[in-house]
Amino acid sequence: MGTLPLASVDAAVIESLKKSNTATVCSVLLRAGFRNVLMKDVRPLGPYAKPMVGPAYTLRFIPAREDLEDPAWRSSEIHREAFEATPSGHVLVMDCRSDTSAACCGDILVSRLMVRGGAGLVSDGGIRDSGMIATMDLPVFAQAASPPVMRVAHCALEHGRPIGCGGVAVIPGDLIMGDADGVIVIPAQVAAQVAAEAFKKDAQDAFVARRILGGASLSGNFPPNAQTLREFEAYLATQAKSI
Amino acid sequence: MGTLPLASVDAAVIESLKKSNTATVCSVLLRAGFRNVLMKDVRPLGPYAKPMVGPAYTLRFIPAREDLEDPAWRSSEIHREAFEATPSGHVLVMDCRSDTSAACCGDILVSRLMVRGGAGLVSDGGIRDSGMIATMDLPVFAQAASPPVMRVAHCALEHGRPIGCGGVAVIPGDLIMGDADGVIVIPAQVAAQVAAEAFKKDAQDAFVARRILGGASLSGNFPPNAQTLREFEAYLATQAKSI
Amino acid sequence: MGTLPLASVDAAVIESLKKSNTATVCSVLLRAGFRNVLMKDVRPLGPYAKPMVGPAYTLRFIPAREDLEDPAWRSSEIHREAFEATPSGHVLVMDCRSDTSAACCGDILVSRLMVRGGAGLVSDGGIRDSGMIATMDLPVFAQAASPPVMRVAHCALEHGRPIGCGGVAVIPGDLIMGDADGVIVIPAQVAAQVAAEAFKKDAQDAFVARRILGGASLSGNFPPNAQTLREFEAYLATQAKSI
Amino acid sequence: MGTLPLASVDAAVIESLKKSNTATVCSVLLRAGFRNVLMKDVRPLGPYAKPMVGPAYTLRFIPAREDLEDPAWRSSEIHREAFEATPSGHVLVMDCRSDTSAACCGDILVSRLMVRGGAGLVSDGGIRDSGMIATMDLPVFAQAASPPVMRVAHCALEHGRPIGCGGVAVIPGDLIMGDADGVIVIPAQVAAQVAAEAFKKDAQDAFVARRILGGASLSGNFPPNAQTLREFEAYLATQAKSI
Amino acid sequence: MGTLPLASVDAAVIESLKKSNTATVCSVLLRAGFRNVLMKDVRPLGPYAKPMVGPAYTLRFIPAREDLEDPAWRSSEIHREAFEATPSGHVLVMDCRSDTSAACCGDILVSRLMVRGGAGLVSDGGIRDSGMIATMDLPVFAQAASPPVMRVAHCALEHGRPIGCGGVAVIPGDLIMGDADGVIVIPAQVAAQVAAEAFKKDAQDAFVARRILGGASLSGNFPPNAQTLREFEAYLATQAKSI
Amino acid sequence: MGTLPLASVDAAVIESLKKSNTATVCSVLLRAGFRNVLMKDVRPLGPYAKPMVGPAYTLRFIPAREDLEDPAWRSSEIHREAFEATPSGHVLVMDCRSDTSAACCGDILVSRLMVRGGAGLVSDGGIRDSGMIATMDLPVFAQAASPPVMRVAHCALEHGRPIGCGGVAVIPGDLIMGDADGVIVIPAQVAAQVAAEAFKKDAQDAFVARRILGGASLSGNFPPNAQTLREFEAYLATQAKSI
Repeated sequence: MGTLPLASVDAAVIESLKKSNTATVCSVLLRAGFRNVLMKDVRPLGPYAKPMVGPAYTLRFIPAREDLEDPAWRSSEIHREAFEATPSGHVLVMDCRSDTSAACCGDILVSRLMVRGGAGLVSDGGIRDSGMIATMDLPVFAQAASPPVMRVAHCALEHGRPIGCGGVAVIPGDLIMGDADGVIVIPAQVAAQVAAEAFKKDAQDAFVARRILGGASLSGNFPPNAQTLREFEAYLATQAKSI
Repeated sequence: MGTLPLASVDAAVIESLKKSNTATVCSVLLRAGFRNVLMKDVRPLGPYAKPMVGPAYTLRFIPAREDLEDPAWRSSEIHREAFEATPSGHVLVMDCRSDTSAACCGDILVSRLMVRGGAGLVSDGGIRDSGMIATMDLPVFAQAASPPVMRVAHCALEHGRPIGCGGVAVIPGDLIMGDADGVIVIPAQVAAQVAAEAFKKDAQDAFVARRILGGASLSGNFPPNAQTLREFEAYLATQAKSI
Repeated sequence: MGTLPLASVDAAVIESLKKSNTATVCSVLLRAGFRNVLMKDVRPLGPYAKPMVGPAYTLRFIPAREDLEDPAWRSSEIHREAFEATPSGHVLVMDCRSDTSAACCGDILVSRLMVRGGAGLVSDGGIRDSGMIATMDLPVFAQAASPPVMRVAHCALEHGRPIGCGGVAVIPGDLIMGDADGVIVIPAQVAAQVAAEAFKKDAQDAFVARRILGGASLSGNFPPNAQTLREFEAYLATQAKSI
Repeated sequence: MGTLPLASVDAAVIESLKKSNTATVCSVLLRAGFRNVLMKDVRPLGPYAKPMVGPAYTLRFIPAREDLEDPAWRSSEIHREAFEATPSGHVLVMDCRSDTSAACCGDILVSRLMVRGGAGLVSDGGIRDSGMIATMDLPVFAQAASPPVMRVAHCALEHGRPIGCGGVAVIPGDLIMGDADGVIVIPAQVAAQVAAEAFKKDAQDAFVARRILGGASLSGNFPPNAQTLREFEAYLATQAKSI
Repeated sequence: MGTLPLASVDAAVIESLKKSNTATVCSVLLRAGFRNVLMKDVRPLGPYAKPMVGPAYTLRFIPAREDLEDPAWRSSEIHREAFEATPSGHVLVMDCRSDTSAACCGDILVSRLMVRGGAGLVSDGGIRDSGMIATMDLPVFAQAASPPVMRVAHCALEHGRPIGCGGVAVIPGDLIMGDADGVIVIPAQVAAQVAAEAFKKDAQDAFVARRILGGASLSGNFPPNAQTLREFEAYLATQAKSI
Repeated sequence: MGTLPLASVDAAVIESLKKSNTATVCSVLLRAGFRNVLMKDVRPLGPYAKPMVGPAYTLRFIPAREDLEDPAWRSSEIHREAFEATPSGHVLVMDCRSDTSAACCGDILVSRLMVRGGAGLVSDGGIRDSGMIATMDLPVFAQAASPPVMRVAHCALEHGRPIGCGGVAVIPGDLIMGDADGVIVIPAQVAAQVAAEAFKKDAQDAFVARRILGGASLSGNFPPNAQTLREFEAYLATQAKSI
């Protein structure tokens, strides 16, 4: 693995992205050249999504094997260390190789992450105690609810290093964003630029949406033609002044 | 493709079917010889289904390829034309080849369909802005929420022609019905007959259900024997008089 | 098939397990040597799970074939007999070979099961009338909502004998437990022991959870070290006295 | 389960069908009203198929569970009994619920079936020792090669009763036919009629194929028009004489 | 659908590509900006692949429905027309929506395509008579062998228009290339440039492969550094002279 | 990750295991407590398997992302380093997260591994140049042939550390065994004991197989009863003397 210095994302960028959503940011990332950013089959736990944005902290599992339960492998310790090591405001992302036959955590570990100020939890595996966790304030996204304990399928190997989750690369420090549409990864080094573009795109989309809901045709409005864009810029200028 | 003149379904038939549901209509269609009418893995967007009945208008995508983004292919225009061309009261049905790796539309296009009086939207692909769309009045059914924009996976090719959706044939003008059980297709030419039979079957099922909830045994009631059928017909005659 | 006399589970054991949950019981079963107890892809019908515990009664389907609709095969009668034969307080578990292309039952049969005092219904196939059933008091778990009638895919063959459901063996009399995490099977002969261990494990988990939510670190608490265990035992003794 | 007396298929019918193939017989069965006869994902073991026709003998497994290894369940005995009980000329068909995570048999059991004059072996699970078995004379079809022993996933429950295999109903005595296209089931009571129609259809297909390979157009030949059918009947009469 | 004039590919380009392979051409297409060119799960029929290159002719199916068997829809005629309409040297590509539950053709139609000089046949559905077809000279690629006749799952709708096959866009006239690695699509307008680059890349790969097989290290050879590239260019110049 | 010193497997153990097979070794591993040792969906490249046994060397990929192609990440170098670093007699095992949408290597890298004395190559991803590689002497196992180049889906991250492959844990130094049944992992620390037991089990199986092929019944022979076991031990003693 290379030693590319990881970018740290400014808090203002995160705050700005909290006003946006995965659909807008996917579009902005595509224009920036990033095509594979959506975690496959990772969904909100419970019927409603809690929006989530934060830098990633990572935990990697390999498949369970009976001899890896030997204390020398420290799998249980590594598992818990990851929850204690996730910095406040961060999202803990777990690489479960899309295997949902066991849980990668339950309510006690999720509670600890919440108490420590975690911004959310993401797994491409299963979560146990899912009914209780769905009532907590912490946003949690996974591929499934799954009650069996971790060691049935997973051996925690290391934390804080690059992983794959739902078929997407996650480098510690990348931003993780989740909502009803799913969970995406925003590479840290483009986060500021993405946030700025997302802000403008959301404003433009809202401007257009109001017209469409008011009865306007798609023609000229979506996508906006030059005239609509001028009107949007004028509106934006007015809004900026009124703040 | 042949030139069979498409049947147009009477408004009263649609109103009648709005009082029925996909489970009843599936049974009636099977008796009429139609076995493959249920779209595979197409589910309501959001935790609760909004019931939907209306004639189909169709849009077909083929897989995306970089050279098909050439303006000469008019993919974006064809995409938007389909939303403007869907007649009021119709359901826009999109053939995404069960590929959910990108969205076939988002909130602005769905808003336009709703404002124009669309009866619903169905896709065997993904929908973006799914959280917002789930709060709109328009019934929307898809295989998944999926934030990436259309051009990542789909190229709109044509609208208003026969398609497959979720493994089921959809001819423009066929009735599309959706509820918590899923989405089915009612061939236009049998819709009137299906509506009449569904009405009677629903009445009979409600008659039987009341007995069962009142403590009656399945025996003789479900399925109804001759005696129960006579009592149901008598009840139906009474109901008809009382209207 | 062998002739092992089936254990009957005491009512107090069932009441005790109703206070527990699938996540805890999975852990307890694993320690008792049972690894494959979770039904794959079997989920609550509707967005919220209704907790369920009860002994299994079973119904087995084989794939439908046109000649098996012959009355001599008695498929429809066997289907209904299973609902009438399920003892009060029992869970009817149906082996649909994970085929969701048709329903294994609808609202009338589910109503009958509820009226007769059934404790729940589980299927690794599809359920029709799912919207209405989700509003009933009876807990229902299945792989999908699916409106087509049974005979499109299933032929009821026999009830009250061992089956597989969601990849798990179910012997009539085994306990079936369901909640938001999914559905598991508790072999009858270990149910009493499992209930006792689950009670203690839940109490310990609650004791630890309070500490974690109060700000304590995972270290020493999860898993509990000797000191924490002593404090838990002391707490448990206090609780026992206070009852 | 009903008590329909099972038809026994005449040896001459089986010999006649050995000259046909699954593609022809599928067509004939469809005309006879049988739509679901192809076992899903069941393929020849090894790169080349050995053609197979014979009446079914059946064996059913339920999912493994640790307590079912108790000798009282007689799972191992039932497993072996099925191989000893399969009559000469019959195909042993095993219901493994499409679970390939373990084998339902290996080379010794397959050798015994071959020595006893079995006509073939079919499973919707896995087969171990697949390299060696592929070199034997016995036709073997399964969903996968899979080395783990039976008890990891399967508990043999009973033999000689109706089962599902690859999503298709199999009643003991039904004919099982396999070749490069896959494995199908021919209900016993229609086997004689199916064999007769298949014989004629194969002759007609061969007659047409020679024309097509000789350069004739599809038009008028495939499907055959009245003129071609007359010529085929004349040819068939000639052939019959020349025998 | 737009009216972009379709490029016609020169015969020399096709001859040149016949000396290359899908792995090389995938790399060249990626450099040209084409990412989605590999048909998913489309494999050679039989254990060994016959290499194939030719322009696409297309046939599209929609899902079968009982009323579409009405002669007015002309589904059978359209099916056969496609085989008669495929120009000599072309590959017939069929859009079966990745549904392998029935065949899209069998030995007679494949024979006709071969006799008429077809270059191959590709389907993302099933093929019947697969054992016989695997022995023919014509390259055939599909997702599976499948004996049931077309009308069980497919209704032929139109030929000669853009389709998707295995998740990839296919425009009539695009080149289709198949070998042991699978089947890819080469957009017509870039075929000449792709062939030229593939020729050079294959020569370079062969140059490097000889070194590696001779014991050279990957370092400096794969990928080639400046020195290796100079030596390759010198070698290439020598080869050109010696022709 | 823990620092358990890795066991090194004696050459005689590897030679002994080369006379055994995955089916036997799976059984022996199960008795030793190892349940999850079979790589899911990993199959021989080409129609026939080449038997393979050797210690694992490992390479891990994470999902591709455009910014990870930055030279600072050294992905291409790490990829090649793994092939140069695999010791002679070892099997290179690659963790591709069961993603077959691109290749993890092609003929040049495989040639280098073969020239350097590698014992085989295993991947739960795709392999390009599969037709040519299937003709080489080196055993190669993967989930699919797949022509697109690595960087479409994979970023090589590190080699020589624990990975998952096909859902199974692989620690560098574990033995990897492959044949027609698939690929399994033998933990290094139990390899010697496993080899000894496998040798005896194979001898016993061959002893029984000869009886079965000679017409003996399964009863008393498979599984062997006390009498058969005594006769086998006597035979084994004779064999040992005759060597």
